[in-house]
Amino acid sequence: MTAAAAAPALPDRAAIGAARQRIAPYVHRTPVMTCRSLDAEVGARLVFKCENLQKIGAFKARGATNAVFALDAEQASRGVVTHSSGNHGAALAYAAARRGIPAWVVMPDNAPQVKQDNVRRQGATIRFCAPTAAAREAECARVQAETGAVLVHPFDDENVIAGQGTAALELLEDAPDLDAVIAPVGGGGLLSGTAIASRGTKPGIRVFGAEPANADDAFRSFRSGQVEPVSTSTTIADGLRTPLCPRTLAAIRAGVAAIGLASEGAIVRAMRMTFERMKIVIEPSSAVPLACLLEGTLDVKGLRVGVVLSGGNVDLAHLPWQA
Amino acid sequence: MTAAAAAPALPDRAAIGAARQRIAPYVHRTPVMTCRSLDAEVGARLVFKCENLQKIGAFKARGATNAVFALDAEQASRGVVTHSSGNHGAALAYAAARRGIPAWVVMPDNAPQVKQDNVRRQGATIRFCAPTAAAREAECARVQAETGAVLVHPFDDENVIAGQGTAALELLEDAPDLDAVIAPVGGGGLLSGTAIASRGTKPGIRVFGAEPANADDAFRSFRSGQVEPVSTSTTIADGLRTPLCPRTLAAIRAGVAAIGLASEGAIVRAMRMTFERMKIVIEPSSAVPLACLLEGTLDVKGLRVGVVLSGGNVDLAHLPWQA
Repeated sequence: MTAAAAAPALPDRAAIGAARQRIAPYVHRTPVMTCRSLDAEVGARLVFKCENLQKIGAFKARGATNAVFALDAEQASRGVVTHSSGNHGAALAYAAARRGIPAWVVMPDNAPQVKQDNVRRQGATIRFCAPTAAAREAECARVQAETGAVLVHPFDDENVIAGQGTAALELLEDAPDLDAVIAPVGGGGLLSGTAIASRGTKPGIRVFGAEPANADDAFRSFRSGQVEPVSTSTTIADGLRTPLCPRTLAAIRAGVAAIGLASEGAIVRAMRMTFERMKIVIEPSSAVPLACLLEGTLDVKGLRVGVVLSGGNVDLAHLPWQA
Repeated sequence: MTAAAAAPALPDRAAIGAARQRIAPYVHRTPVMTCRSLDAEVGARLVFKCENLQKIGAFKARGATNAVFALDAEQASRGVVTHSSGNHGAALAYAAARRGIPAWVVMPDNAPQVKQDNVRRQGATIRFCAPTAAAREAECARVQAETGAVLVHPFDDENVIAGQGTAALELLEDAPDLDAVIAPVGGGGLLSGTAIASRGTKPGIRVFGAEPANADDAFRSFRSGQVEPVSTSTTIADGLRTPLCPRTLAAIRAGVAAIGLASEGAIVRAMRMTFERMKIVIEPSSAVPLACLLEGTLDVKGLRVGVVLSGGNVDLAHLPWQA
C-alpha cells in the first residue's frame, strides 16, 4: 500500500489578501483601462488590467515580491535563486533588491543581451548554463548547494501564485460588476491566482484562460486532468510556452470555466489593435485573451469582462506585424 | 497714418476653466504617469500628461471640442470645416459628431488612407484638393461659401487655444508642485494654451516649448518677435512642421521662458525610450520635450517637470528606429 500523494498546497482568498498587503510598498497598483472601439470589435464591455505598466513591465513582480517578502529573516539572508530568464527572473532580481538580499538567476548562455541586462540592472548575479531544462535545473541546484539560496519557482509556488492573484483583487475593486475575467495561461501561476482571487471575491464570476493554439498544453491538461507536455513551441507568445504543474492544474480545474485557444494571426492582430487603439505597449502573451475574443473561442458576448494584460516587455525592433 | 493692428484675442485662465467645463462630457480626463528610470536619465522628476490616451489619440480633441461647443445654435447648424488632414481634422470630425452637426475636412488628394479613414469614421465629409497651401485654403473657402460652415483653424483660434490649455489645468491639479511644464510647439496652440493655463494657475511656474531643430521656426520667431517661416520640413515630428501665427506668437512671447531644440536622433531615442520604459505608444511630436531634456537644450535639472505627451497616432508598421 502506498500513501496517496498529498494535494499540492494552494493559497486561499485570505492568503491573496495578505500578499496584497505585503507587496503593496514595492509594486504598482496598476490602472485599468477601457476602449470603446475594442468593445465594439468583440461585442462585450472590456476592462483591461494594465500589468504591462507594473514594475519590471509584467505581473511577475507581484508573485516574486510576495515570495521574497514571505521568507523569514534567516531564509532571506541566504538569498534566492530561479531559472527563468524571462520576466520572472527580472522580477525576482527586483524583489531581492528591494529586500536587500542576494539573488541568482540561472539562464542559458544564449539568452538575449536585453534579458541579461534586465537582471543585472537589479543587481542580481547571472549563472549561465547550457540551454536545456536539465542543465538549468542542475545549475539551480548547484547554486542552492553552494549558497543555501531559496529556490523561487516561476509558478509552482504557493506564495508566487498568491502574489499573482493580487492583480485580480485590484481589478475587481475597480470594476466590481465584472461577469468574467480572462488571463493568459503559460505555467498557470497567473491564471491560478486569478481564479482563486476572483471566485473568492465574487463566487458567481466566470474565469477563463487564454492560450495560443500552437502551445495548447493547458487546454489539453484541463480536459485530461493531468499535466500534458507542450508539444510545439512555435508561438510568438513566448511567455506561454510552459507546461502547467500539478499545483496550477489543480487550481485551474477547480476554478476555471474554460480555456480558449488563439491562432498566431489573431494574437498578432490583437496585439496590434491594442497598440493602435489603446496606445499601450504589450507583449504577445498579453494579446492572447483579446485574440480569443476576436476569434470567438471564448464566448463573452454582452458581458462585462476583465482582461489581464500580463506584460509589456517586447522587442520593439521586431514587432510581429512587420515584414 | 495707419491704424495699429489690433492684438489678436487670446483666452485667459478663466476662459480655459470655462472650456474645461464645456468639453468635460466629451473628452477624457487623461491620466498622468511617472517613470523613475526616465527621471534618472534626465536628472529631474517628470510627470507625463498622457494626451496620447485622449479621444482620437491626441490633445487636439480638446480644442476642437471647445470650438464646436462654443458655437451658438445658428452657427452650429451650418457645420464646421477645417483643412488639417492630421489630428485636428480627426478631432474636428469627432467634435462635430458629438454635437450632431456636419463637418467638412479638406485634405490633399495624396493624404494617407489611414488619415482619410480616421475622418470618415467620425462621419465627416472629406473634400480633396491639390497638396499646396493655396489649394487647401481655396477649397476651404469654397466649402464655407457653399455651406456657411464655420472655419475652425487648427491653432489660430481663441477657443481652440483655450481647449488645448485644459490639459495643463488638469496636469497642475494632479501635480500641483510642478516647477515647470514643457509642451511641443508646432503652430503653437498647445504651447499657448499651456502657458496661459499654467501661469494663470501658478504664476511662478516656468513654461517651455520643445521643437525639432529641423523645424526651428518657433525658436527663431520667439527670438525675432515675428512669425518666421518653416525653412525645412525634414523632421519626423510631422505634427510640428507648422509655423506659428501672430496670435500664438503673442501668447508664447508673453508666457514661455524658452524654446528647446531637439535633434532627429534624440527624438527617435526619446520616442523609443517612452515605448520601452513607460510601455505607451506616442507619436514623434510627443517625444520632442523628452528629447530636449536628453540633449540638455532645456535645463530642468533637479526640478519637478510636467511633460505634455501630445498624441499617439503613429504608423506602427514603420517605427523610426527600425531599419
